[in-house]
Order: sequence, then structure tokens, then C-alpha cells
Amino acid sequence: MSDQRMNLELTSIIIFGASGDLTHRKLIPALFNSFCKGRLPEQFLILGTSRTEYSHDQFRDRLRSGVEEFTTMQCDDEQWTTFADQIWYLKGDVQAAEDYQSIDNFLSELEPSGANRLYYLATAPAIFPMIIENLGSQGLASSNKGWRRIVIEKPFGHDLNSALELNEIVHHVFQEDQVYRIDHYLGKETAQNILYFRFLNSIFEPIWNRNHIDHVQITVSETVDVEHRAGYYDQAGVMRDMFQNHLLQLLTLVAMEPPSAFRADEIRNEKVKVLSSVRKLHLDDTVQAQYEGYCDAEGVVEQSRTPTYAAIKLYVDNWRWQGVPFYLRSGKALQAKTSEIVIEFKPPPHVMFPLPDDYELTPNYLSLCIQPDEGIHLRFETKVPDSYQETRSVDMEFHYGTSFADGRLPDAYERLLIDALNGDASLFTRSDEIENAWAIIDPIIHGWEDVEGASDLRSYRVGTWGPQEADDFLAKDNRRWRLGCD
Amino acid sequence: MSDQRMNLELTSIIIFGASGDLTHRKLIPALFNSFCKGRLPEQFLILGTSRTEYSHDQFRDRLRSGVEEFTTMQCDDEQWTTFADQIWYLKGDVQAAEDYQSIDNFLSELEPSGANRLYYLATAPAIFPMIIENLGSQGLASSNKGWRRIVIEKPFGHDLNSALELNEIVHHVFQEDQVYRIDHYLGKETAQNILYFRFLNSIFEPIWNRNHIDHVQITVSETVDVEHRAGYYDQAGVMRDMFQNHLLQLLTLVAMEPPSAFRADEIRNEKVKVLSSVRKLHLDDTVQAQYEGYCDAEGVVEQSRTPTYAAIKLYVDNWRWQGVPFYLRSGKALQAKTSEIVIEFKPPPHVMFPLPDDYELTPNYLSLCIQPDEGIHLRFETKVPDSYQETRSVDMEFHYGTSFADGRLPDAYERLLIDALNGDASLFTRSDEIENAWAIIDPIIHGWEDVEGASDLRSYRVGTWGPQEADDFLAKDNRRWRLGCD
Repeated sequence: MSDQRMNLELTSIIIFGASGDLTHRKLIPALFNSFCKGRLPEQFLILGTSRTEYSHDQFRDRLRSGVEEFTTMQCDDEQWTTFADQIWYLKGDVQAAEDYQSIDNFLSELEPSGANRLYYLATAPAIFPMIIENLGSQGLASSNKGWRRIVIEKPFGHDLNSALELNEIVHHVFQEDQVYRIDHYLGKETAQNILYFRFLNSIFEPIWNRNHIDHVQITVSETVDVEHRAGYYDQAGVMRDMFQNHLLQLLTLVAMEPPSAFRADEIRNEKVKVLSSVRKLHLDDTVQAQYEGYCDAEGVVEQSRTPTYAAIKLYVDNWRWQGVPFYLRSGKALQAKTSEIVIEFKPPPHVMFPLPDDYELTPNYLSLCIQPDEGIHLRFETKVPDSYQETRSVDMEFHYGTSFADGRLPDAYERLLIDALNGDASLFTRSDEIENAWAIIDPIIHGWEDVEGASDLRSYRVGTWGPQEADDFLAKDNRRWRLGCD
Repeated sequence: MSDQRMNLELTSIIIFGASGDLTHRKLIPALFNSFCKGRLPEQFLILGTSRTEYSHDQFRDRLRSGVEEFTTMQCDDEQWTTFADQIWYLKGDVQAAEDYQSIDNFLSELEPSGANRLYYLATAPAIFPMIIENLGSQGLASSNKGWRRIVIEKPFGHDLNSALELNEIVHHVFQEDQVYRIDHYLGKETAQNILYFRFLNSIFEPIWNRNHIDHVQITVSETVDVEHRAGYYDQAGVMRDMFQNHLLQLLTLVAMEPPSAFRADEIRNEKVKVLSSVRKLHLDDTVQAQYEGYCDAEGVVEQSRTPTYAAIKLYVDNWRWQGVPFYLRSGKALQAKTSEIVIEFKPPPHVMFPLPDDYELTPNYLSLCIQPDEGIHLRFETKVPDSYQETRSVDMEFHYGTSFADGRLPDAYERLLIDALNGDASLFTRSDEIENAWAIIDPIIHGWEDVEGASDLRSYRVGTWGPQEADDFLAKDNRRWRLGCD
């Protein structure tokens, strides 16, 4: 059945991959925090399933330690007990059709009058298709007694073709409006706020275009290396791991036209318009690199050519952005952890002040600081006090941490889970969005996987800002990477 | 002679009214600080004159105590001694022609090879004409051995006619380029910075016009009452004391077109254009008020009708500002001391977010904070973290105090005195500027002095934000006073 709100009392949340990291680090802390804030449905139950053997109580205890370790909110014991009473566990094999029947039977006993059900795929991506197909074939996707929705974790496919295939499988079982493809970047307060900033304020939108903007930079840098994820990462690389989802999502938020309403499809239509306007990328407009020592990590194949760093330049071919380059970069083992968008404006058309000959005027730039120091900074030029007419660039700054009483921002999963429970898909990725994003990335990953492309892989030292070639990449356009949020 | 730089070694600074407050509170501390910073001419001398009897050393001691009390910079004893060795005093009567000869003779002995001379009128305004005429008739204004300049303190005239008369007297003796009419507001770093902010940054100028700005507010509020200045103040009132000079100067900085160069006449041409574009004011567009208890102050005439508070609405009739109201207010005995300019922008043309019915969206406004907490704030709307889609307005802030190592800004007189010594009149008021400013104010002060106008004088309690009528004044335009710098 399609997505109908049936106003049922009970909502069941079924987590596949319940023994994994995501469940006890993110999902359960998010659900528990939402419970404490009174945001969960009044009647709910959570059923975890995986190949691991747990009793209900063992599972609950494991989750509790996760909550204690990873949650940002203190809730008392009594609240945990009430919450944990609604948690159940069932060992199951995703390959075994009969185990889906066991899940259905188990749930049916707890759902005497029926229930809404949210299926959450927190497993390895390789088994998404199998679970989805089984949910369909075993009748768990249909109901005349409540809605059925599915949340699918990233990565959604590993290139355009596999994403198309996965969407086909999904759509064979679910209507698009039942599907919630997650990109947790969209659940971050600072990512959400980009649209508020742009469209609830009147002063930036008039200059948010090719007439006033010189270029845009999006940086998502990590200090960690591949750690224990090497097995997955070596197959994926930075393009699949970061660009196809997070960076392109940030791009859509910065570049989109104003939607007419803040509703899921209105917003996603505009995002798709941006992605489908991106000019086809050439390898000349990319830099790929691998940090020194990457190949020594356990799980990485010998002489791996997987890039752990990339920088790309792309253009959005529409009236607003024609000719404005967007520089995107991301990497592991870099000097600092930051996610930020820098909008660099054109210099003033005429400088009336007699600046020194060697003075390099800093252009205005606006920095949207996604993490870790969430906020917004605006770099502008000011007169240096007590000088005749010396100038310097300074920041006007807004920090969530100081502007809001409780400076701690909720984890992105809190918002996303509640939205999925409420049927609001605004912050989830639609099938055409995913496909368009892969279509942008495909030529790069396939190009790099060619012999010739692979030969362009550069090297960089751990703890730097990537390879020299990434700086040269901007320098040849007379530009430089900015860090606007430090 | 006109203003020629003759590259003479010695520069003499002659202060009339040297026993007054201004000299030991402002002028000498400013000159001494500049001396400590190495900004005074290498050879200089300072000659003070007034009716009071001092020996040179008595005068120096008096100035030293002023420096200790009022300067913001610590200089050592040795530096003071070197500085004070260049200070002299001569008792004189400004009415007596022969006393000008004494000054000239005294100086001539100290200026064996001639010198540049800066005359500084720090006396009561009533005797400006007499001093200027005597400087002319006694030959002190002319020289073939160095430049002659004159700095004239405010107020320059007490209405349009008197300003015209005074300019005529001035121009009979000095060329306009020898004349430095001071408005110390223009020497404030934050006032100077308005032009840097507007014209050395590219992002504000595109929205700095009637298409994007709803209105502008200029507030200069004081907490002090008339204090010991009641005798002068009761003759002047708030319009002459604050509006004709400070507030209209701030108006010109906010409203002017970009000059082609940062030079005295280019800047002042643009300021004059603004002032001459101000639409003739009607009394309907004004509120005048007097704080309760004003008439009890010593020096105030019985049942005085002098306003200590005023608010006016004016329009600048040109392409940039047509239809944009400028609200100016100033007063004594108010709730807080602040000088600020608030640029309020129009609301967003379309709000796509489903705000609550009773939600009042705060428009964007930019606050230029002249004093006391010098800086720039930008009010914008943001999403409240951890809410579904609640929004709130917050500030992006820049503070001189935190952005520059030595947060203390120099006193305005430092800059202005050095500029006068260097022949840079950019921050001084030209004759046509003064006259245009009086032409704006004249209809109000004369209107208020009529019997009918005087009957509109309102009353307000000490420590409030002025009379209720001032709030109503904006409320009837569906606007409200903003304080953007707190």
C-alpha cells in the first residue's frame, strides 16, 4: 500500500543489522533522546534483528551501554527502563525467507490491532536488495492496517548502474513515497539551516548568483585515516564515500532555486534541477590523491590505487550559476576536521582607497560552518583602528554554541528518524536525486579506474591539506582554498 | 596665502581658549599621544592663549594633569618633559588687536626661520568671528614663509543665516582649503569605517538602495542630562547640539554615492549631494520633547521650551533613496548611551516555511555601532536547533574590541589634529556642507520656536527612551525603533 496515515496507535520500528555499530551508536541514542523529549509516537516498539544471538535483555543491555557512551542527553534510569521495555530482539538470517515470517509473526503478536511499521536497513549495503525483496515477497511491505516505510542507509549503489538497479528493486516493493534514503548530512542542523539562511532572509538572495559570486568552495575534511573501515573504504574511495552523497547534497542546498514551499517534493525537485544542470566533468577538472601509508592499513589491497583525497571543479549550467566554478574537496588524514561551504564574492568594482601597491585585497566571503564549530562567518574588510588608512579583513561571526542556551546540537539521526516516523521526506534523497548524483560522479570514478586515470593518483603526507596539486589546481585559476570557520 | 606645503621644519599650533575644558581634556591629550606615536611634525610648538593668567609652567602643569586624567595611552615622564618643553602660554584678550600682535611677536621669536601655523579656535562660538577678523587684520593669517590653517570648533553658527555670515567672515580672511571645521564624530574610527565598510566590500553596495532597504534609523542617545552645560544648551537645544552636525554627518556617510577617490573634495562633494537632496522637513515629521526636571537645572530659563529630545523622519530625494525613510533620534537623560545606525531591509518576498500564524518575522537589519561597543552586527533569521522548523533572529557580530589586539580606539581628536597638520580635510566639514545642513534643520528649529510649534513639546521621564509619541511616530508607519548594538 502507499503511504497513508492511518492514525494507528502503535508504530513498530524494525532494525536490520541491529548488532552493528550504527544501531547502538546512532539509532538507539537518537530514538531514546526523542523518547525523552516526548517526540516518539505514544505507543511504539523497536525490534532488532541480525545474525548475532542475543536475548531481549542482552540486546537491551548492549543498547544501554551505547546510549551511555554516545548520547548527548542525560535521561534518568526510569526513562530508560520504560523505553527499554519496548525493545525486542530476534535472531534472523536475511537470506532465509522463513526468518521474515518469524519477524512478522513475532510482530503480529505485539500488534494485536495492527501497526505502522518503519523498516530500517542498517546492514551492509550488499544485502539491501535481498532484504527489500524478502520484505516484498513475504508480505511485510504491504498492509491494510497501517503504513509501511523503509529507511535505507548509504551508500545507495556504488555507481549509476547499481543505483538504478537498486531503485528498480525498491520500486518493485515500495512506492517512492514510502522510501527514505538517508544522508545524515541533511539531518545536521547546520545543513538544514542553509535553506533558512537563504530563504528566510532577504539580504543574501539578491547577491546569490553569478553577478556577485566569484566561486564557491565546499570542504569536508577528516583527520582520521581509514581506521577499521579499510575493507569497505578500499572498494569505495573518497568519491563514493563522500562526494556522491554529502558534498553533492551540500552543493544542492547552496545552489538551488527557492522552492515555492518547504515540502519534500518541492525541495527535492529543486535539488534534482541543480544536479541535472551540472556540466559533465572531465578528469582535467579533478585531483585525486592517497595519503602516504594508506596501503599499509589492514584490509587495503596491495598497491591499492584508491584515492583518499579528491578535489573537483564543477559548473552548474543555468542562469544563476553560469560561469561560477564550484570547487569541492574532501579527504582523510588531513590537517583538520571541518565541513564548510565558502561563498567567495567578487572584488569591489572600484577601490577608491589608496592602498599600498603590494596590498592584496581579501574578497568578501561567507562561510557556512557545518561542523565542528557550527555557525556562519562573514569575512569583510575594515579599517585598522589608529591607522591612517590601513585595512584588514575581519570576521562577523554567528555561533550556535553562544547564540543558543544549549549550545549542543542534536545528532542528525534524531531529526531524520522522527521525520521518517512522521512521513516527512524533505531531508531524504529521492530516487532521481540519487541517480543524478551518480551520473555526475560516474565519469570520474570510471575514469580514475582506467589505467591512464589511475596514473594521475598523487600522494600527500598525513596531517597536511592534501597534495600540492590541489593547491595548484586553484592557483591556476588565481584562487586559493579558504578555511572560513576557524 | 592659500594652502601650500612649504616643507618648513617648524609647525606652530596656536590654541585660542587654552584654559578651557576642550584643551586639557581633548586637544593636549590627543597631541601628546600623537607625539608619543611619532606622528607630530619633528619640530613643533604649541602656544596656548586665553584670558586666564598662567605662567608657562603653570599652564604645562595644568595640561599634564589633563593628560593623566583623560589620555588612554601611557607615556613616560621623559616623553612628557620633551613634549612640554614645546608648550608655551600667553595671556591675551581676543578683543584686543594688540594682543594678536603680542602673539605674533612671541611666535616670531620662536620661529626665527618662519613656520607653518595651525590656529585652533577652542573658545566660545560667539567670539569665533572676532578672532578670525583679528587674525586677518593683524596679519596672522598671511605669510610667505609657511602655511596658515584654522580649525574651527562646533557649533558653526546657530542657524542658516548665522552660518552664512560666519562663512563670509571666514572667507574674507582664509581660503576654504585653509579651513578645518571640526565635527569630532567624523574622527571616530567607527564613523570613518562606514565608508570602508561600504566601498571596500562588494556585498553590501548591491543591496544598499531603495530596492532592498526598508528604512534607516540613526540613534545618538545620551544618559547624561544637561549637567553644567545648561547655559549653552538651553540656547541650542537638541537640534543644534546633535542633529545639525553629528546626525546629519552620519546620514551623509550612510547615504552617499561612492566617491571616485578617497580625497577631501571628492568625499565632500558626495556629502553635499546627499544633504541638498533631503526633502524639506515638515513639523509633522518631527517629535520634540523635554525630560522632566530639565527646567530645574541651573542656567535653564524659567519655563524653557528647549527640546532635549527629538526624532525626525526625512527623505533623500534621489534615485537610490526615493521612498526610503530615514528616522533620526537623539536625546539626553535617556535609558542608555549609544550611537548607532540601523539599516533595516525589506522582508523576504515569499516565505516558504510554514511559520505559526502569529509569528512576526524579524527583518534583516545591519547595525553600525559607532559607540560605545564599537562594531558591526547583522541580524538574521535562523532555525532554532532541535526544533522542527521554529525560527529565531540572531546576530552575526564583529567587535573592534576582540578583533584588534589593542581593543581601545584612539580618541577622535587625535586623527583630526594630525589630518589638519597634514592638510587632509577629508574628515572636516566644508562651507557648503555646513550651510546645507543648516538649511535642513532651519525649518524645524524655527517652527518649534513659533508659539504653535512650541505647544507640541512633549515630556519624558529621565531614564526612558523618550516620549511615547516617539514610539507612536514609527508605529504609525508600522515600524519600531531598533537597538542593534546591545
